[in-house]
Parts: sequence; C-alpha cells; structure tokens
Amino acid sequence: MAKTADHVVQLARLARAAGAQLARATGPGRRSILLAIADDLARSDTRAQILAANAQDMEDAQKMQARGELSPALVDRLALTDRKLDGLCDGLGQLADQLDLIGRVDLERELDRDLVLRRVSCPLGVLGVVFEARPDAVPQIAGLALRTGNAVLLKGGREARRSNTVLVERLRDTLQSQGLHPGAVGLLEDRSDVDALLTLDREIDLVIARGSSAFVRHVQSRTSIPVLGHAEGLCHLYLHHSASPPMAARIAVDAKCGYPAACNAIETLLWEPGAEPALVAAVEGLRRQDVELRGCEATRAQHPDLDPATDDDWSTEYSDKTLSIKRVDHLDAALAHIDRYGSRHTEALIADDEFAATTFIASVDAASVFHNASTRFADGYRYGLGAELGISTGKLHARGPVGVEGLITYRWLLRGTGQIASDYGPGKRDFRHRTRIPKP
Amino acid sequence: MAKTADHVVQLARLARAAGAQLARATGPGRRSILLAIADDLARSDTRAQILAANAQDMEDAQKMQARGELSPALVDRLALTDRKLDGLCDGLGQLADQLDLIGRVDLERELDRDLVLRRVSCPLGVLGVVFEARPDAVPQIAGLALRTGNAVLLKGGREARRSNTVLVERLRDTLQSQGLHPGAVGLLEDRSDVDALLTLDREIDLVIARGSSAFVRHVQSRTSIPVLGHAEGLCHLYLHHSASPPMAARIAVDAKCGYPAACNAIETLLWEPGAEPALVAAVEGLRRQDVELRGCEATRAQHPDLDPATDDDWSTEYSDKTLSIKRVDHLDAALAHIDRYGSRHTEALIADDEFAATTFIASVDAASVFHNASTRFADGYRYGLGAELGISTGKLHARGPVGVEGLITYRWLLRGTGQIASDYGPGKRDFRHRTRIPKP
Repeated sequence: MAKTADHVVQLARLARAAGAQLARATGPGRRSILLAIADDLARSDTRAQILAANAQDMEDAQKMQARGELSPALVDRLALTDRKLDGLCDGLGQLADQLDLIGRVDLERELDRDLVLRRVSCPLGVLGVVFEARPDAVPQIAGLALRTGNAVLLKGGREARRSNTVLVERLRDTLQSQGLHPGAVGLLEDRSDVDALLTLDREIDLVIARGSSAFVRHVQSRTSIPVLGHAEGLCHLYLHHSASPPMAARIAVDAKCGYPAACNAIETLLWEPGAEPALVAAVEGLRRQDVELRGCEATRAQHPDLDPATDDDWSTEYSDKTLSIKRVDHLDAALAHIDRYGSRHTEALIADDEFAATTFIASVDAASVFHNASTRFADGYRYGLGAELGISTGKLHARGPVGVEGLITYRWLLRGTGQIASDYGPGKRDFRHRTRIPKP
Repeated sequence: MAKTADHVVQLARLARAAGAQLARATGPGRRSILLAIADDLARSDTRAQILAANAQDMEDAQKMQARGELSPALVDRLALTDRKLDGLCDGLGQLADQLDLIGRVDLERELDRDLVLRRVSCPLGVLGVVFEARPDAVPQIAGLALRTGNAVLLKGGREARRSNTVLVERLRDTLQSQGLHPGAVGLLEDRSDVDALLTLDREIDLVIARGSSAFVRHVQSRTSIPVLGHAEGLCHLYLHHSASPPMAARIAVDAKCGYPAACNAIETLLWEPGAEPALVAAVEGLRRQDVELRGCEATRAQHPDLDPATDDDWSTEYSDKTLSIKRVDHLDAALAHIDRYGSRHTEALIADDEFAATTFIASVDAASVFHNASTRFADGYRYGLGAELGISTGKLHARGPVGVEGLITYRWLLRGTGQIASDYGPGKRDFRHRTRIPKP
C-alpha cells in the first residue's frame, strides 16, 4: 500500500462524519444548503474575494502561456467572470429546486406479519473528485454532491489553486453558517494527496476522475475504489450503403470537428460498398475543415490522395483533427470492427434503411448508440440530465453521461418484532412476501 | 499482465458472440430456452448421465473425507439427487415465467423534433462465475444468466468436476437444439484458467465470486473487471437499553448459531449501560449453544467467566461459534464502533425505543440495517428476490443480496434525422427536452 498522508486521512474522516450528517438531513434541509451557497456566491464581497484570487491565478497562467507552457484554451477555462459566477448561481438554484432523490422507498415488501423490508435510496458517502483547471467546477461539483447528501474531497488543476482555495473556503463558511460540519467539502493540495486519497478504500466511496484518458487510466490502476470516468473515447461513424450523402457530410464534420479533443468525437469512419457517394461527400466536407485523413487500401483506391492508415490507426484516439477511414464488407463487418476497436462509448450509423438501423442499434455494445445523429450529442446537458458528473464507459452502476443519479445508492431496511430466520423454511413458517411498493 | 491461456480467450470470444445473439433474442425466446433446459433436466436419460457422473465425484469425495481432507458439509453439498434435480427444474420454470427485464425503455425524451433519446435495459454481456463445490449451482447460475441475455463462463469446485462437465454439456446441447450458439455457457477447467479469465477485461463484463472472504479478496486484487461478491461479513448486533431480554436472547442465538460460517452471522455483540438484563439473557442463550464468548473489560466485570477480548477481536470474522462482546457508552458510540469495524454488510439493533431505532436505521452505512430482527434475514431468498447471485458489500450497481437485476445494464439510444450538435447552444437552436417516459 502506498503511503497515506496523515492530513488526507484526517480530511477523509471529517468528510465521512460530515457526510453522515448530510445523509440524515431532510430534503428541504439539503435544498436550503444549495440556496445558501448560491446566495453567498451572489454577494459582492464574496465575488471580490473570488475574482481577486482568480486574477492572481490568471496572471501566473498568462506568464506561463507567454513562455509556451500553457495552452490558450486552458487559460480561457481558468478565467472567472461575474457572468460565469451568475451562471453558477442560477445552476445552484435549479439544482436546489430539483426533486430530492434521497430517502425514496422504491420497494416495500412484507416478508411476514410485522416484518417489513424496504429498499431506500441513500447517498454514496464520500466522493473524491479530481478535475481539470476550471475553478467553476468547484461549486458545481460540490453542489451536486451536497444536493445528494454526499461529502466531497476536491482536487483541481494546480493553475487554479488560489481560486479553488477561496471557493472552497466560501463553501465551508456557508456550511458552517447552516449549522453543518464544514468538513463536508475538503480541498486536496497536490498530486501526492491524490495518491494518498486513492488508498483510502474504507473512507472514499467513489472517485470521479475528469481529465485525459491517460490520467483516468492512471487513477484506475492505483485504486481499488470504484472510479467513474471514461478511460477512452474511440467512437466510429458507419456509412451504410443507404446513407444520404449530404447527411453523411454534415454529421461526419460535426462529429470530428465540433470539438476534436472531446471523448464523443469520432476517430474512424467506416463505409461499405454502395456508400461511395456518402463517402465522397464526407471526405469533401472534412477536407474543407482541414482534417487529416488516413485511409485503408480500399479507401485509397477511391481517394488516392489520402495518407495510408496502418493497423495502429484503428485503435488510436487522435483527439485532434485526424480521422481514419476504413472500408468494411457489410454491416456485420462494421459491427465486428466496432466490437474489436471501439471503447464502448458512442457509436453511430447513417442509413435510410430501417432494417440496417434496427440491426445496428440492437447489436452494438456501447453506452450510446445513434442513428442519423452526431456522436457529439452524447453529453449530459444535451441528454437533458441537468448536470453531468462525467461520462462512464463502464457498464455497471451508471453508463454513458452520468447525472446526480450516479451519486446515489440504496440500503435494505428491515423492521421486525423479534423474528428469527431459523423459524422459516421447509416444514416451518412460510414467508408471506407481499409486495406493497414494487420496484419499478 | 498475467499470461492468458489461449483456450480461455477462445471460450470468452465465443461467449461474447453467443451473448450478442442472446441479447438480440426476444423475451419469449429467452423464456423458451429456460423451459427447454428444465425439460432436458427432467428427462430420465439426462438424469442417469448426471447422477452417474455425480456418483463418481461422490466416491472420490468420500475417500477424501475418510482421509480428513474434505468436510462432511462439503460432501453433503456435492451430492445430487432426483429431488434436488426436481427442485432445479421447478426453479428454472419459475425463472422462465418471470417478467423479461431486457429491452425495457425506462426513459424516453424528445431532445428536439425527430430526435428521440431512449434509455433501454440490456444484458451486461459475458459473466465469469467462480463458485464452490455445489453442482446444482451450474443450472441455477446459467439459468439466471440466460434469462437476462448474458453468456457465462463457469468455474466450480474441483470436487464437482465430473458433475459440472456433464451439466454444462447438457446445457450446451439444449442451447444448440434451440438454434443458439452453445458457447453461451462455457466451463473452465482449473484455477489457472480463472487467472487467465481475470485478465480479459474487454471480454468479461462482470466476475461473480462465491466462496471464502480470502478467495473473493484474491479475485478482486487480480482483476480490473468489476467483481460482485462480499469480501467480508463482519456484522454486529447492538443491544439498546430498551432491548427486550427474551428477544435479545432469541435473536443473538439465531444470528450467531443459525449458520456460523454464513456472511450474515454476527461476530460482535454491543451493549450499553441499562441493557444488562438483555445482555444476561443473550449470554445465557449463547452459552447453551456452546458459543465461545470473549468480552471487553467492562463486559467481564458483569460476566467474569468470559475469556478476555483483545483489540483484534473487533475486526475478526470468526465464521464459527465464537462471539466477541463489547460495552459501548451509548448509541453514538455503537454507531462509531460499527463504522470503524463493520464490513457494511448487515447491522442490527434490538430496542423498544422508537427514537433509538430510527436513529440507528438512519445512521448506519451498511447494505442491510435491521431493527428487532435477526441479521440472518439478509439473503436473496428471504428478501423474496427469487434467486440470489450473491451478496455485495460494494455500494455501486447492486448492494446487499443481488438478484437478476444485478445482471442488467442499459444503453442510451438516439434516433435522429441528420441532426448535428453544433446547431444547438446559446444563440442557436434550443433543446426541447420533452420527457415522454420519465425515469422512475
């Protein structure tokens, strides 16, 4: 076991105690926490404090950008503005008004007279969240956690260190002013703290990792705590011979170029004999967007000016404006290619043929499977989930875009009047098993 | 990565292909598979084949028992009889008639005109199941897997090798006679096959481990595939000062002695000042059952003839007729002890006081939390889940006793008419997000 920094253990234990307090709070109680946080973030002296800290972070970041050590995109994400903070306050208000998901009885069954079993939803407990340099994520993630009765330990990008520190201090002050333990929100300082956190499998119930695939894999390999995150986003767009050429061009361009670094962007275009017109349209559209295209031999027979693709291309998540193109013999061959190389994230086909669409949708093993729509729709906001914690390529618990539901589990509660198990069984008492509230 | 035996990779790939076929089958199709298996197991020549193989396994096992190498309990579990096989046929028939859980739409949302998102339940894919020497588990587990559209690779105890081989052959023949790929059920031969299986994280979607805590931990430590199983069952019974003494005695005896090796048996009895009469009743009852009792200093002040407990006792799962007893100062101290030493499996209190019961139930973080009932009720059959795959002490996906629901996940299916994501957003099109079927 890796060394565990004592202060991280301390933070985790405080968070666990604070989480237990949150779990026992009422729904209206959890709602008012969110409203109090939003109110505080709307106050002018809080704003001044946050923006001053952010200005210092920005100053350092701009120097690093000038030296070529930070990308302009990262510096943009780091900036906090009054408008961003207004948006955060709105978001917290909406979250406050959402249906409380804790304490819901989704099964009630009389096992016998005066022996009643209930399955009741409850928080997971303590979340560990490691995220990129975007300080607005602090109140967002803390809001999602607190709304569902969870405590949370946060570790953001080091470029946002000062902003995150002030934001977490404000959150903790607000918790305290609400009579709650401030330990429900904690901040980790550096990367070694994350390593320590990952060893605390009794204290931390779920790790949410947001960042590069390599980072998520790193986290997964170092912990026995469940990790919510997507280790990879290797998505395909398949052109059936019935694909409409203009639709193929529009969707291919959106799915590759909308945001090439996104996990729901495509990396490989598959096409089958008969789909040549759709392929031509897609290739022309992608070229206009300066996408670097790499083709298999059969594709290059149609488009000789493409770079040749090697076998490595089929398993590469480019995360930039590069796309590999491969001819497959038919739908089943497309399915086999996707099964072999896909990351079970999002897979799409373009087809006018209903039978092909139905077969594709019924067969692909992925969190999201689309027909005649861009893979870029695979996103919590676009799905209407309210807020997105992340996208999971695992199959258990929560799959695809994960909203607040992913922060909830359940307990089995049994209330009796002295019953013992050895009174039941063959030749003894029978269970009644009368279900009053069925599981949906 | 550990070495992967080629024949295990082969079995897993066949299972994956067969699983895809099962997933596309209709509900009535999956039902008829179960009925065909039950029919075959009811045929006299099938019975003769199975019982002959089992007789050979039994002969070897009895020799081993005579040499003291196998426990009589294990030999009992190994035996197949016509009556056990009749029970299996009944169980498969009941499973066949259960509601089909695959293909259910639990959310339908119009993201925009002609752009419809559905969340649809689907099988996990391929299960790897490692279980004890109980050959009747083969048709039971295979039945649960097939009913939910999953393929399964099984590895049973080596003492049941011949019985398991015949049972799996029969299942595969039945699958083939139904026009299905026999690879949906596969049998692993030895322990090194299990090690190979655990490396196949692209082919195997869930590992179900049934056996000792040490075995489950061994499996968990060797794989990145999610594991369903309980690594530990360290359960407590807490006597509040309002506990009824006769109830305390009855429940303590049932919870400790009903089946001491079970994960839902108690290991520690907690009592608080005022609960002395309940403690006396429990101690007397447990002594009559020859339970070895170990007490903390305060407990031994009341019962001087108890053996002294050391700190190690609080974290020991005895799995036999040993029980540790500890005095706690009050309810909160009991909760703190349970939080520190419990395995989040099942925790119970005995109290007539309703406030104490409510506080305990609201506060304990465990899969099952009981009031005035024995911990031994924590079981899929007793909960009325139909069939139990195992008990999970993890919090994600499935918690506590897990039935067929634990074998199911979902996919997000989106059908559009050419929509692209970059048409939506601030200053562009708005999402409609009209929910037609709400998530329950």
